[in-house]
Amino acid sequence: MDYSVKEIAAALGAVAVGDTTRKIARAAEPATAGPADLALAMNPKYAEGLAASAAKVALLWPDADWQSFGLEAAILPDRPRFAMAGLTRMLDAGQGFANGIHPSAVIDPSAELGEGVSVGPLAIISAGAKIGARSVIGPHCFVGQDVTLGADAYLREQVSIGARVQIGARFIAQPGARIGGDGFSFVTAEPSTVEAARHSLGDQGDAKLQPWARIHSLGAVTIGDDVEIGMGATIDCGTIRNTVIGDGSKLDNQVHLGHNVVVGKHCLLCGQVGVAGSVTIGDHVVLGGQVGVSDNIFIGAGVIAGGGTKLMTNVPAGRSMLGYPGTQMDKQVESYKAMRRLPRLLRDVEALKNAVFKSGKAD
Amino acid sequence: MDYSVKEIAAALGAVAVGDTTRKIARAAEPATAGPADLALAMNPKYAEGLAASAAKVALLWPDADWQSFGLEAAILPDRPRFAMAGLTRMLDAGQGFANGIHPSAVIDPSAELGEGVSVGPLAIISAGAKIGARSVIGPHCFVGQDVTLGADAYLREQVSIGARVQIGARFIAQPGARIGGDGFSFVTAEPSTVEAARHSLGDQGDAKLQPWARIHSLGAVTIGDDVEIGMGATIDCGTIRNTVIGDGSKLDNQVHLGHNVVVGKHCLLCGQVGVAGSVTIGDHVVLGGQVGVSDNIFIGAGVIAGGGTKLMTNVPAGRSMLGYPGTQMDKQVESYKAMRRLPRLLRDVEALKNAVFKSGKAD
Amino acid sequence: MDYSVKEIAAALGAVAVGDTTRKIARAAEPATAGPADLALAMNPKYAEGLAASAAKVALLWPDADWQSFGLEAAILPDRPRFAMAGLTRMLDAGQGFANGIHPSAVIDPSAELGEGVSVGPLAIISAGAKIGARSVIGPHCFVGQDVTLGADAYLREQVSIGARVQIGARFIAQPGARIGGDGFSFVTAEPSTVEAARHSLGDQGDAKLQPWARIHSLGAVTIGDDVEIGMGATIDCGTIRNTVIGDGSKLDNQVHLGHNVVVGKHCLLCGQVGVAGSVTIGDHVVLGGQVGVSDNIFIGAGVIAGGGTKLMTNVPAGRSMLGYPGTQMDKQVESYKAMRRLPRLLRDVEALKNAVFKSGKAD
Repeated sequence: MDYSVKEIAAALGAVAVGDTTRKIARAAEPATAGPADLALAMNPKYAEGLAASAAKVALLWPDADWQSFGLEAAILPDRPRFAMAGLTRMLDAGQGFANGIHPSAVIDPSAELGEGVSVGPLAIISAGAKIGARSVIGPHCFVGQDVTLGADAYLREQVSIGARVQIGARFIAQPGARIGGDGFSFVTAEPSTVEAARHSLGDQGDAKLQPWARIHSLGAVTIGDDVEIGMGATIDCGTIRNTVIGDGSKLDNQVHLGHNVVVGKHCLLCGQVGVAGSVTIGDHVVLGGQVGVSDNIFIGAGVIAGGGTKLMTNVPAGRSMLGYPGTQMDKQVESYKAMRRLPRLLRDVEALKNAVFKSGKAD
Repeated sequence: MDYSVKEIAAALGAVAVGDTTRKIARAAEPATAGPADLALAMNPKYAEGLAASAAKVALLWPDADWQSFGLEAAILPDRPRFAMAGLTRMLDAGQGFANGIHPSAVIDPSAELGEGVSVGPLAIISAGAKIGARSVIGPHCFVGQDVTLGADAYLREQVSIGARVQIGARFIAQPGARIGGDGFSFVTAEPSTVEAARHSLGDQGDAKLQPWARIHSLGAVTIGDDVEIGMGATIDCGTIRNTVIGDGSKLDNQVHLGHNVVVGKHCLLCGQVGVAGSVTIGDHVVLGGQVGVSDNIFIGAGVIAGGGTKLMTNVPAGRSMLGYPGTQMDKQVESYKAMRRLPRLLRDVEALKNAVFKSGKAD
Repeated sequence: MDYSVKEIAAALGAVAVGDTTRKIARAAEPATAGPADLALAMNPKYAEGLAASAAKVALLWPDADWQSFGLEAAILPDRPRFAMAGLTRMLDAGQGFANGIHPSAVIDPSAELGEGVSVGPLAIISAGAKIGARSVIGPHCFVGQDVTLGADAYLREQVSIGARVQIGARFIAQPGARIGGDGFSFVTAEPSTVEAARHSLGDQGDAKLQPWARIHSLGAVTIGDDVEIGMGATIDCGTIRNTVIGDGSKLDNQVHLGHNVVVGKHCLLCGQVGVAGSVTIGDHVVLGGQVGVSDNIFIGAGVIAGGGTKLMTNVPAGRSMLGYPGTQMDKQVESYKAMRRLPRLLRDVEALKNAVFKSGKAD
């Protein structure tokens, strides 16, 4: 962290203007930016704050009149939002995990560690595990039996990975991410109340109540390249085959994937999303926070679901969805508006009934 | 894992047909099953895939015409779904946790370990804890002071159990399951805005804003026999008495139980269910994914709630529920359908008003 | 735990009556209270149970006729609910964590531990961390690089705190609470399907599908004094500045705060609340269980949201909210009632149409 304006602009493929030899200490929001900081003011709504600040260097929008803000230098990327990816990668101070194998780690002699692997204090690597080159296994992490983890993985503290899970390159796991628990699959000796209710939608007053027998998970989890899993997220094993997460998909904190789920490539699953067992999700799907997906359904490629949506039936590719139950977004918004008019509607219909039927009677 | 068809069928109480001496290497879905695998094709919808596969042995439905699929042997259970429980138990390769006490585990001298207990690397067992015979305490697990854990427990990695929790036999905890945190119970010196809003349903613009005082949890958690708790699930202690989970109940990943909750026997609480404090749930209740239950209410025996349902008032035994707020399932489905007709209804009423009142005026 | 009635009453600032020298062994609910217990019967609805019990001492409501219940002594606080805070603090048996530094803990030589700090078995304290006086770092906890933790903190088992997080005095973290993961922030090289859908609310059949580039979190988390965080809760770092939790706020189990969120002072966020990135929440806000808050909005001071509410737009100070989308509580309840009348309304309008338009045609 002591780049010049010129170096940063070059790394971002952006235009640099003014005194581009100035050094940057850190990035800052305009309100708190000092003369040694790079103020981030990525669209004109930040212009006023920037002009009032002590900032002398800023990352701005493409055609910004940078000199009008009292700056001595500026970086002008084509798409400032995208430039944030490169900039924050350059300036990330990281967690400070030490290189090498900490002496307190417990590593089975049969585990295979690639070149340059680091293992933090009190981490455990089990028999038969294979860790790709340059991967970092954080403090208190647990890597189970016969796990395969690709090159350049970065596991934060207290991550757990169960037996036989297979993970591609450049995997990132946030603290306490959990991969490879058993699926939640139970069955009764005779058809259960749930099986009955799915058909009838009715009550089951006299259905036979029985204990649950456990269906063990024989499968594991297969995760592609460039996947990231959030804090406290939980990924279940498959029953017979593996649960799957495709290349480039990112799962936020507390996301839950049930057994046999298939997530496509380049999906975003936001905080607290829950996906029930045996769901298939296509590529480039985006599920907002707290979205729920019912078991055994199909979500097509490119689907977007707004926060809190409950997807309960198959969704064709490319749809934008919202609501409970999930409905096409524009229709759902129309429905929300109609609901707000409901109390008035009830009064209108009452008035109509009085006018039509009472006057009818009076005839 | 190298059972014959005959052995598997006998264990499942199922009919075996064909060359029942064939050995099975593993279970597989029809699409990927090879000649040494047991293809799982448990109802006729899998028939086509099975015929096209390389499978030579399959688990089928009761009256399946097994020879028509090119098989050399088959297992025909009465209820194939239930047979999955026995089959997967036989074929489960497990986590490979080693027997015995790992030297890196930290075990208080006053803890009592039953015969054949295993304790994984870097696990902690606190003073006064009692662990039943043959129980497995996984890597990185924490067992608190004076905890009682029954026989044949299986704790996966990184499970934590707080002080004084009492757990029955055959307990299963998935990775990172958490039992025995303090309840979330706070009180203000004078009645709070929440107490006011519960009565008025209105706003509280000038209510006095006060800091929260903590009510400590003096109780712990009592868990019956044959209970399973999912990854990242969190079970709070009771305030005065213990929070309770009855025999045979299963809680999925990220389920949350507040303080004083009582869950009956043989319940299923699916992924991300949240149950607020002091709720009582009867036996054989099934709550779908992301169901929420408001505090201080009663859910009768045998109740089923569909995914995403928010139960906000007492629910009589045997009801099937859906929606927010939770409503009887058939009425809720009728209501969803009506909502979709709302925009048209608004237009219809507008037309009626024009016809009735404008024509009335024109008279 | 062996206080007299007089001592307890004095600590609570409550009136003591009868034989106030009696000693109390523990608190109990009326149904299970024995002669040596303090029965908790804090309002008249418990009166009958109390009279039928073996209790000889009870905590009652202000004007209770204590002698009519067969008691020999009683404590009569002005606000019994508030008295519970003081009482449970006195009687809390705690977790039994040992004082001092356990020899199995891994503590970097550059970490600074205040006077009287305790560190549990297998805990990790990283380089540059500063731990305030008398703080308790529980078993298996991880404290990251350059973390600052105030005096009198109490971390239960398996808590993790990432690099550079700053926490005030008297912090409480329940088991597995996680602070300081990276924010969930990804961007595409060209505008994404999500950016398009936010404007159109429509589908995006032919939008270009692109991989996600990661925006790193350069900020950390700042937590005030007297904050408590529940089991499995996850608090993300900010992107440029820190995510903030104000003094006195309490977060329940499995609460999720995204990057850049600001939570005010003395808020209560109940179980499984999810707050998306860059939300600002005022002081004294109460969010019920499973509430969701959409990204980049503002929740005013004193707002209360009922369980399951999804707040999707700014909420003015002092509002009580309910529903999905979140609406003023009284209006939402009116709307729920109207929805239940919808099927009948549809029939009514059908009848009106028949009467008005068919009779019209018949003219």
